[in-house]
Amino acid sequence: MSLPDSGAPAPSSLPRVGVGVDVHSFAPDDEPRELWVAGLHWPGERGLAGHSDADVAAHAACDAIFTASGIGDLGAHFGTDRPELAGASGVTLLAEAARLVREAGFEIGNIAVQVVGNRPKIGTRRDEAVAALTAAAGAPVSVSGTTTDGLGLTGRGEGVAAVATALVVARPVD
Amino acid sequence: MSLPDSGAPAPSSLPRVGVGVDVHSFAPDDEPRELWVAGLHWPGERGLAGHSDADVAAHAACDAIFTASGIGDLGAHFGTDRPELAGASGVTLLAEAARLVREAGFEIGNIAVQVVGNRPKIGTRRDEAVAALTAAAGAPVSVSGTTTDGLGLTGRGEGVAAVATALVVARPVD
Amino acid sequence: MSLPDSGAPAPSSLPRVGVGVDVHSFAPDDEPRELWVAGLHWPGERGLAGHSDADVAAHAACDAIFTASGIGDLGAHFGTDRPELAGASGVTLLAEAARLVREAGFEIGNIAVQVVGNRPKIGTRRDEAVAALTAAAGAPVSVSGTTTDGLGLTGRGEGVAAVATALVVARPVD
Repeated sequence: MSLPDSGAPAPSSLPRVGVGVDVHSFAPDDEPRELWVAGLHWPGERGLAGHSDADVAAHAACDAIFTASGIGDLGAHFGTDRPELAGASGVTLLAEAARLVREAGFEIGNIAVQVVGNRPKIGTRRDEAVAALTAAAGAPVSVSGTTTDGLGLTGRGEGVAAVATALVVARPVD
Repeated sequence: MSLPDSGAPAPSSLPRVGVGVDVHSFAPDDEPRELWVAGLHWPGERGLAGHSDADVAAHAACDAIFTASGIGDLGAHFGTDRPELAGASGVTLLAEAARLVREAGFEIGNIAVQVVGNRPKIGTRRDEAVAALTAAAGAPVSVSGTTTDGLGLTGRGEGVAAVATALVVARPVD
Repeated sequence: MSLPDSGAPAPSSLPRVGVGVDVHSFAPDDEPRELWVAGLHWPGERGLAGHSDADVAAHAACDAIFTASGIGDLGAHFGTDRPELAGASGVTLLAEAARLVREAGFEIGNIAVQVVGNRPKIGTRRDEAVAALTAAAGAPVSVSGTTTDGLGLTGRGEGVAAVATALVVARPVD
């Protein structure tokens, strides 16, 4: 793993921001899956495809804190070289991402995630989603939802997207 | 309305960031509408469909400050339980969102919005758009525009998208 | 060029955040181009179309710092009125954008960019990309990559997208 932005001249006292996007397609009818989004199981909803639980909200949150900290991304940390994480839940990955970010010397200020898609309806279970992701990250995570007016991959119901941002700050050196 | 991220362990002195995305489709030819984007009326341009004025830039800005503050999203605040806001303009919604964010104890640092689409051309009226949204939010709002090289829902001219981020900070307790 | 958000009431001591998105389509087979993404040449990869080098990551990074600073966008600064920048590389544009942002009175804290697409595989050359963009911006730039599970314009291989965020802060007045 590379060091965070080695040689970067910015003042360490400033907080840093990051961004993350993720998209997963809905599973085909003949290979039904359970739906996991924003750390929650959504019974009765069509599931998303993927080797993991396909929790786009948790994955986008991971990339937001990774990129804020400059320590790579989801693929770098949770790729094929860590078989123990194969199939790990979004909440497990977010907790591990937060641990790696802290290990690299950063404190997590907050994470904001927006789920973009027709289903699930985040507003119906926002408090649960906030609680699940906040517990995983050990920092405040807000969760919102929106749709795309029937347009694009999410509007056509092909999949669900999520976009996240995060703020971290380097811990003062003792 | 839920409290902001109750139980969240992050230091209140750090600013917080948020993100918001919105998409509206162009109105069909047989149901023409006026175009409102970034707080401005764009005469002679094809309008966007929606119950509201479909101002994607203002809506994305609302979600950016809501998610930065951890107090829900556009649907939660301006949904069907507030009939007095039915059909409200984007500027009206942004002003009300900013009021709610301040009421929840936050100061708004800034908001940045990018409009993604073939039309309207933001650059031709950027100063007006900045002035309209900055007045509504009571905080600096920057407005930019880009296209997607003919690809996707915006490139095909099916609709207009906007993405926004924002920074807020908790006001010191008296 | 307009002044940054004139009349904006926010405290100048707070940092400011920005956002930028960019999309370029792959060049047609009968007009092959070299691929430039994240400040790097990717030999053997299909190129992106555009008047410039079509470096979506560098372009999104420019808009992120422009919008954080409230001084317009890529089109405003690098449009047709600056012919000397026609065909300029993404790294050249990012260096010039960073100069303009500093000239407007801001210090750049950090920039985070995520490249969204099937190709190129950012993770294979992340350190080089970070070094190239960090050198151009004169501030830490993190670079991540993700895919969209075969969906949308990037999943279908029509083009490559990038999304970026950035944090800047006004320099204290001497």
